[in-house]
Amino acid sequence: MSTFGDYFRVTTYGESHCRSVGCIVDGVPPGMALTEADIQPQMTRRRPGQSAITTPRNEKDRVAIQSGTEFGITLGTPIGMLVMNEDQRPRDYGNSTMDMFPRPSHADWTYLEKYGVKASSGGGRSSARETIGRVAAGAIAEKYLRLAYGVEIVAFVTSVGGVHLYPPTAEHPSPSTNPAYLQLLQTIDRKTVDEFLPVRCPDADAARKMEAHIAEFRDKADSIGGTVTCVIKNAPSGLGEPCFDKLEAMLAHAMLSIPATKGFEIGSGFGGCEIPGSIHNDPFIAAETAQKLEEEQAGPTAANHHHAGIPRPKLTTKTNFSGGIQGGITNGAPIYFRVGFKPPATIGQEQTTATYDGSSEGVLAAKGRHDPCVVPRAVPIVEAMAALVLMDAVMAQHARKTTRSLLPPLNQAGAEQSKAPGNGQA
Amino acid sequence: MSTFGDYFRVTTYGESHCRSVGCIVDGVPPGMALTEADIQPQMTRRRPGQSAITTPRNEKDRVAIQSGTEFGITLGTPIGMLVMNEDQRPRDYGNSTMDMFPRPSHADWTYLEKYGVKASSGGGRSSARETIGRVAAGAIAEKYLRLAYGVEIVAFVTSVGGVHLYPPTAEHPSPSTNPAYLQLLQTIDRKTVDEFLPVRCPDADAARKMEAHIAEFRDKADSIGGTVTCVIKNAPSGLGEPCFDKLEAMLAHAMLSIPATKGFEIGSGFGGCEIPGSIHNDPFIAAETAQKLEEEQAGPTAANHHHAGIPRPKLTTKTNFSGGIQGGITNGAPIYFRVGFKPPATIGQEQTTATYDGSSEGVLAAKGRHDPCVVPRAVPIVEAMAALVLMDAVMAQHARKTTRSLLPPLNQAGAEQSKAPGNGQA
Amino acid sequence: MSTFGDYFRVTTYGESHCRSVGCIVDGVPPGMALTEADIQPQMTRRRPGQSAITTPRNEKDRVAIQSGTEFGITLGTPIGMLVMNEDQRPRDYGNSTMDMFPRPSHADWTYLEKYGVKASSGGGRSSARETIGRVAAGAIAEKYLRLAYGVEIVAFVTSVGGVHLYPPTAEHPSPSTNPAYLQLLQTIDRKTVDEFLPVRCPDADAARKMEAHIAEFRDKADSIGGTVTCVIKNAPSGLGEPCFDKLEAMLAHAMLSIPATKGFEIGSGFGGCEIPGSIHNDPFIAAETAQKLEEEQAGPTAANHHHAGIPRPKLTTKTNFSGGIQGGITNGAPIYFRVGFKPPATIGQEQTTATYDGSSEGVLAAKGRHDPCVVPRAVPIVEAMAALVLMDAVMAQHARKTTRSLLPPLNQAGAEQSKAPGNGQA
Amino acid sequence: MSTFGDYFRVTTYGESHCRSVGCIVDGVPPGMALTEADIQPQMTRRRPGQSAITTPRNEKDRVAIQSGTEFGITLGTPIGMLVMNEDQRPRDYGNSTMDMFPRPSHADWTYLEKYGVKASSGGGRSSARETIGRVAAGAIAEKYLRLAYGVEIVAFVTSVGGVHLYPPTAEHPSPSTNPAYLQLLQTIDRKTVDEFLPVRCPDADAARKMEAHIAEFRDKADSIGGTVTCVIKNAPSGLGEPCFDKLEAMLAHAMLSIPATKGFEIGSGFGGCEIPGSIHNDPFIAAETAQKLEEEQAGPTAANHHHAGIPRPKLTTKTNFSGGIQGGITNGAPIYFRVGFKPPATIGQEQTTATYDGSSEGVLAAKGRHDPCVVPRAVPIVEAMAALVLMDAVMAQHARKTTRSLLPPLNQAGAEQSKAPGNGQA
Repeated sequence: MSTFGDYFRVTTYGESHCRSVGCIVDGVPPGMALTEADIQPQMTRRRPGQSAITTPRNEKDRVAIQSGTEFGITLGTPIGMLVMNEDQRPRDYGNSTMDMFPRPSHADWTYLEKYGVKASSGGGRSSARETIGRVAAGAIAEKYLRLAYGVEIVAFVTSVGGVHLYPPTAEHPSPSTNPAYLQLLQTIDRKTVDEFLPVRCPDADAARKMEAHIAEFRDKADSIGGTVTCVIKNAPSGLGEPCFDKLEAMLAHAMLSIPATKGFEIGSGFGGCEIPGSIHNDPFIAAETAQKLEEEQAGPTAANHHHAGIPRPKLTTKTNFSGGIQGGITNGAPIYFRVGFKPPATIGQEQTTATYDGSSEGVLAAKGRHDPCVVPRAVPIVEAMAALVLMDAVMAQHARKTTRSLLPPLNQAGAEQSKAPGNGQA
Repeated sequence: MSTFGDYFRVTTYGESHCRSVGCIVDGVPPGMALTEADIQPQMTRRRPGQSAITTPRNEKDRVAIQSGTEFGITLGTPIGMLVMNEDQRPRDYGNSTMDMFPRPSHADWTYLEKYGVKASSGGGRSSARETIGRVAAGAIAEKYLRLAYGVEIVAFVTSVGGVHLYPPTAEHPSPSTNPAYLQLLQTIDRKTVDEFLPVRCPDADAARKMEAHIAEFRDKADSIGGTVTCVIKNAPSGLGEPCFDKLEAMLAHAMLSIPATKGFEIGSGFGGCEIPGSIHNDPFIAAETAQKLEEEQAGPTAANHHHAGIPRPKLTTKTNFSGGIQGGITNGAPIYFRVGFKPPATIGQEQTTATYDGSSEGVLAAKGRHDPCVVPRAVPIVEAMAALVLMDAVMAQHARKTTRSLLPPLNQAGAEQSKAPGNGQA
Repeated sequence: MSTFGDYFRVTTYGESHCRSVGCIVDGVPPGMALTEADIQPQMTRRRPGQSAITTPRNEKDRVAIQSGTEFGITLGTPIGMLVMNEDQRPRDYGNSTMDMFPRPSHADWTYLEKYGVKASSGGGRSSARETIGRVAAGAIAEKYLRLAYGVEIVAFVTSVGGVHLYPPTAEHPSPSTNPAYLQLLQTIDRKTVDEFLPVRCPDADAARKMEAHIAEFRDKADSIGGTVTCVIKNAPSGLGEPCFDKLEAMLAHAMLSIPATKGFEIGSGFGGCEIPGSIHNDPFIAAETAQKLEEEQAGPTAANHHHAGIPRPKLTTKTNFSGGIQGGITNGAPIYFRVGFKPPATIGQEQTTATYDGSSEGVLAAKGRHDPCVVPRAVPIVEAMAALVLMDAVMAQHARKTTRSLLPPLNQAGAEQSKAPGNGQA
Repeated sequence: MSTFGDYFRVTTYGESHCRSVGCIVDGVPPGMALTEADIQPQMTRRRPGQSAITTPRNEKDRVAIQSGTEFGITLGTPIGMLVMNEDQRPRDYGNSTMDMFPRPSHADWTYLEKYGVKASSGGGRSSARETIGRVAAGAIAEKYLRLAYGVEIVAFVTSVGGVHLYPPTAEHPSPSTNPAYLQLLQTIDRKTVDEFLPVRCPDADAARKMEAHIAEFRDKADSIGGTVTCVIKNAPSGLGEPCFDKLEAMLAHAMLSIPATKGFEIGSGFGGCEIPGSIHNDPFIAAETAQKLEEEQAGPTAANHHHAGIPRPKLTTKTNFSGGIQGGITNGAPIYFRVGFKPPATIGQEQTTATYDGSSEGVLAAKGRHDPCVVPRAVPIVEAMAALVLMDAVMAQHARKTTRSLLPPLNQAGAEQSKAPGNGQA
């Protein structure tokens, strides 16, 4: 379905060439300051045409809030948002080849198999414009998470083709064992990431190589994939619902729902499967020291989350192979994960393929200019989806914690259990 | 929540030491022959204690159907199933260390952060016994999919630690470009996989190396991770719901909800992100030739699915980097994906960690024998979760297709669209 | 939440004075002809200002489809729809009294208790404008149901205050025993209902009395309630999901979600609770005779539903106290139910009430003209909600029936059950 | 589906003659004392065979908790519960007539139309035993609501056939205008209701008449319906979700999902549709006086809910035609509603009906003794469903309120809105 989330629920609509694309966000907390100005920055970061290596179509993508706020304050009712499609001509891509041939590795063929109707642009909802609603909704979630918990969600490009920010080495087969990588996760912010436009890889050398790599594929009328890494800092502990809706399961669901994604890994990921348990296990340590250090480094933003009165957990982990999630539940450490994006299917090179009815073969070549690599533009979409997952989990946990907090203390109930950890804190 | 699926909906319950673990499966098609004999084989494959390298606890795990069938036929009503816990002693693991220290990389700490109550076994629902309900429910889904479409779901071990069935080479950085790998996906079946017990890697040489690798970690009282690859054959085209519930997103959600998983990749996966679009795009070809060949090879099982009267799609793809899914929707080609499992957290080695209250440090070492590597036992769980995802998607698509089929043909509606592909077939 | 339905899922947004009100409809069958012209008629029937006895505000309520169709054909993707609010001035109702006093029996007070934020119009989403999205979505569901099954949904006014179309008599305490009433249910259509504007009670005498009754309350600056009865003809048998989502439960949910409703009864309703079982039980009869008769009476519309190839059930009931639903599942007979609407809370008379903070009392009187009775306008809203319930149930049943139809016949499975009714029809 | 609720989610299974009936309750707050002793009393109140006028089958119905508690304390994980069916013989009712004829007004026919498979007991899940899971789950919800808010839910019989506790009079067409009725709602408790067994109508005179009325129908081998009224006291304000999940809509859904129900009305109900708005509007008054009075009357139970620190709302209403709900949201006043139950379909009298295939007619008469009136036994089921609705709404509101409470105060955001009521209380 076109709905994501249970408590903070986003429903989107829109194809490439219809009147508008948009979404309804239900479950937005009331009493939060919110205007288009909170949403537009991420919309703009998502927008194509930001450099020579991304697609030059100039979509303006101005979001307009339809409902759910008054005088810049959320009412708690659903927030309708939309972005007009400036190009509403169906059959824009249309030409005789397009009508006869499903494009290789596009959704043309599968949408027809599914619906029995072909949208003029081919793959209907598989259009990248569908992600506009996600980014708009994600911006609301993010604002809340930042205000309430000081949560920061930052994504950045970690590879383009074979060019990696942290290439696997003999010493560090997974970057999770590399102190430089872990340090980057602690300090990275969006401003820094955008200083490395057009590729959004926060390392001058790697960024330069990646840009050159993309340019190379652009010049060959070819395309290339890459990976985006995302870190979520200051997420409260206790998020994620056993057993089917573990936080990493929800993140994986969210990330693999982004067009063109091929893989997801949390924490140490696939690399971690090759590390012995004796190293991979994250020992607990008292949170105090770690916290002091973090605050000194991160400054006023991190301090913000204290107003919420949510105490930091007493423990943290020395290493973080777990990626901030254990047993499907956050432990308060930074959550980090990596998402793989395939090379875009639309390329200028000629490709031999079959007609819809399988009766003959032919050759396709995309006209115009197309994005040779999507990872730079995927950054705000990954952030948005991460925010939606986290927000939903936060509200679920708020429901549970508050519900529990109204129960009488267990010692009144005479339970033997009362000596065990946590049972005095009803 | 403890519920998975919208149309074929599984709800599970149970911890390590409670009376029973079980599930309710809602949405099971009526009129299907079903008894415990259909379910027990996968329960048994999941059972620990099958060899020297898996945990020797002897759980019998006999499933008992409570409702929803009569005289061996499903009624269409919810199927309750349960497996008694033979060991119902809470505090089984209990000892003074266990009560004072959260075990590193277990769910002890996060469950306490989430619920404020500590189950005697530590991580409550994070117990491996929780997967019993999944496997029982998956067996029902599988039976339907096999009867109705000839679907075959086969998982097997592709790596243990650094030992890979298809190690990356210069020529084949991703196994998706390796013809031997693709051939294996076409031919592998469960019987063959189980011939390679205890590791379930269907290659004598690799299996031997993996078994030795696991034994090595067992002897060091350490643990190691690995990967499981799963292929779904004969899945109908058109499955998967845009945009948030793409089939790969549902698979990722399902797989990352299995305890100890760290990563998921569909088709070419992370490796595919390094392959140029001009190679990675899967050209369409007429399905006829491919199909003939497949039937000759696969024999009567594949032929089964013809009774359903579901015609195979007219097209298939020459290569299958997409892993059978394009734009989030199946195209009829084999679906394959890989799941990464971390090294088990419970190890016999001593580990230094902190007490629950962070006040002091101490040393933990697990008593008894524990599974040094979970991937062999994970095989039927991966298959079960894949079956649940597919079954839900099949029912969603049945709803859509049948609903559409009752509409009058579009040419009666006088639509211009009627010349486009697919519009005559209402 | 602002979402209704599982398979055919409607999400709405919008308050009184925001930019637009609208909805997203997910799960619309692909390949159906659909334009605004299919939706506007019910929007217009819902519109206020149609006569001297309804509110004279002139809302134009032009619906605009945003997505999900191309060239007038549904794509199967979500349909976004919106209606601009022509009056977007927050605080329109605003005055000092309004800010100080919650209006008696409005949602002003409860919305503030719920959200802690007060919308300028008072009750936020409780505005009647919220129903616009329901009616738009309902029109799509209705079109499908009519095309596929010849379903007709007709609502009409059966009482205004104490003036009843079928007042209870000694002979007929419930109209369900009155042949004239049952005959009306069989023959009534929307055209006839609208001939009795402004009250929409399809009986000249009763309508006149009701109109006079409403006028009387209008003249006293008071208000009055009433009831709407709705009949659904040609609904297929087998709809409704045990046990929590019985069809009458879904209808009750849908109807009581309409603003100002106080009661719901299905079939014989509360009156039926006073009738002995020996009379109230509906004996089965062969459907053939009944059907012939019905077709002679109802003409070509009813015949329409044959194209779907859905055979009518073999049995029908002689009487219909059940209201077409038994055990929560439709039996193919007409479904009918009654919905009670309270007198509108906004009245011109002075009312004494308390300030928000409870510190003092005061007197409120609504300015301008307000609807003294909502039942005439409620007619299309009741129809829309009935259509949404039915459409969702139809799609659920399509999923089940098609899923079952692909199973092998049971006699192959060797089941003893195979002699029982229905078991040969796999 | 067999699932009810979003936050506090109940899934049930079981037919008449399967091994067990039961449920899984997900979302139970952790840290609550809970054993079978909390659940059994309502199970026992629901049990048939409590008197000469209810069905004499002796079902023992002992509930067994399977999971989700340890040492009598909830863990926050799903609670599995089951009750063994002591009579597990399929075809218990079976005889040649039963196999040939669908029983009038039973679910035999519609279940066959829906599933195409006939359960040996006829209507599958429509069995009254299905309600066992509801009552077990409801008991958990009730315990929480009582502990956290002092909520009391009390249902009682208000009519049997034409015998009413408060028969409509010229002065009081609806009991909502009758002070004696409103006084009863304030003071009634379960203990008192059960003093009036077997009919559970808390008025000696009316109870006697109802008992005689039921006996009369029993002696004629006939059956009769009736109504149950339920009051919920001390429900917090702010419960109920706009716009589709208004609290009365959820209650209506819940009640009409109980077998044999025909109608639902909230507050003044259908009678209220005949009362002028000027009377029907509930004026607000300061809650203080009302509260003092109530506490003097209701004693320590009501006082309990103070520990939760949830302040009572500042206002209450002078009258309560609204039934405690305005705009779909609770206002803190008692919630009351009425549910209509039809006469049971199983009667000893002979009934003429048709065979399954419509080919011939025949005569059916139920053997053995059957319940001539279900309302006395329906009392705990109505209470259970009310508890489930309320619990779900409470958790939804907890999620919202806590989420809001973590936002910074609005005056920091510089909003103009800040002068309006409620906006200083972030």
